[in-house]
Amino acid sequence: MVRYINVKSRHRNEFIDITEDVANAAKEAGVKSGICYIYVPHTTAAITINEGADPSVQRDIQQALTRLIPHEYNYSHREGNADAHIKSTLVGVSHYVLVDEGKLVLGTWQSIYFCEFDGPRHRRVAMKFIASEKCIEPRK
Amino acid sequence: MVRYINVKSRHRNEFIDITEDVANAAKEAGVKSGICYIYVPHTTAAITINEGADPSVQRDIQQALTRLIPHEYNYSHREGNADAHIKSTLVGVSHYVLVDEGKLVLGTWQSIYFCEFDGPRHRRVAMKFIASEKCIEPRK
Amino acid sequence: MVRYINVKSRHRNEFIDITEDVANAAKEAGVKSGICYIYVPHTTAAITINEGADPSVQRDIQQALTRLIPHEYNYSHREGNADAHIKSTLVGVSHYVLVDEGKLVLGTWQSIYFCEFDGPRHRRVAMKFIASEKCIEPRK
Repeated sequence: MVRYINVKSRHRNEFIDITEDVANAAKEAGVKSGICYIYVPHTTAAITINEGADPSVQRDIQQALTRLIPHEYNYSHREGNADAHIKSTLVGVSHYVLVDEGKLVLGTWQSIYFCEFDGPRHRRVAMKFIASEKCIEPRK
Repeated sequence: MVRYINVKSRHRNEFIDITEDVANAAKEAGVKSGICYIYVPHTTAAITINEGADPSVQRDIQQALTRLIPHEYNYSHREGNADAHIKSTLVGVSHYVLVDEGKLVLGTWQSIYFCEFDGPRHRRVAMKFIASEKCIEPRK
Repeated sequence: MVRYINVKSRHRNEFIDITEDVANAAKEAGVKSGICYIYVPHTTAAITINEGADPSVQRDIQQALTRLIPHEYNYSHREGNADAHIKSTLVGVSHYVLVDEGKLVLGTWQSIYFCEFDGPRHRRVAMKFIASEKCIEPRK
């Protein structure tokens, strides 16, 4: 079973906090201990886990990416979003989170962000859970 | 059990579409629902998932990486492939894909690419599958 | 169950080889075949898998990251570590390693590095293991 979060971006470059959606999906899946697999089925978006307390961090990440990978450039791809594809590869579309005692194992400052690089668009984030208790083999 | 795909690159920088090989391995593994773990056991190569429809996207990604990480530079590593090591870290050697109803859960435009940064070489891509049906614990 | 490795960095930017710690944790977990999930619960650090033989590779990666993402810059985030947050997103906080026959499946030259971008600090690396033998469903 694959679970989906619907995301609606409003800007070309935008980070959208999906931590709560992922936490709710983990609760619904009933996983006590295991892995939460997050996957973006798009080629101009990505997933990152980074600071959630100060929104300026997200802006700094977005601006650094745009400084390194400018929107306007002599790209071969003619759809005007080559920069978004490149950013997607640099940030990555698959990142997991550990689950323990029914909760996502996130650091104090960590939030999970859907990274939009070619918005505004309607997007989906796919998730799957594996519970480890039934999989781990005992030592002997 | 670890499965391997053999890849033969022909250029220094080259993306090789391994989507079908991964899909076939998933079929052979007989996984209906689970995770396909892809892993590159090399230090000058990587895995990315990005657009497969227009080959110019791959070229744009490769060129952006080379613009940011030039081949010739004042590197400490004396084997002439420091750039390839750096690109490997930026793109990453471990990326998974979800499996559902016996098929890879890929977005419409997504293909899986082996990224060669120090070819031509003979390479291997390792894969492992975990089926989730037997692992997910019911809610109660 | 989540296992932790304690890491103590001594420099602002530093790669710390945790391969042996991860291998020991895999042995302790008693996993013969499966996945080792490595996760950094910090927002100014990351995990990478790259060459362990020549330490100059680590320096080249660190220097390339710092050249692309300078420490001093007109960042919005006022804590003086915006660069470290950006590097964390580029390198990534979640990377897995396959386990087979009780051992980490690493390429000949691969080592696992904790990447410190805002040291010196005391850090933790979280790990979880899933054994695949009990999860893989047979072909028929």
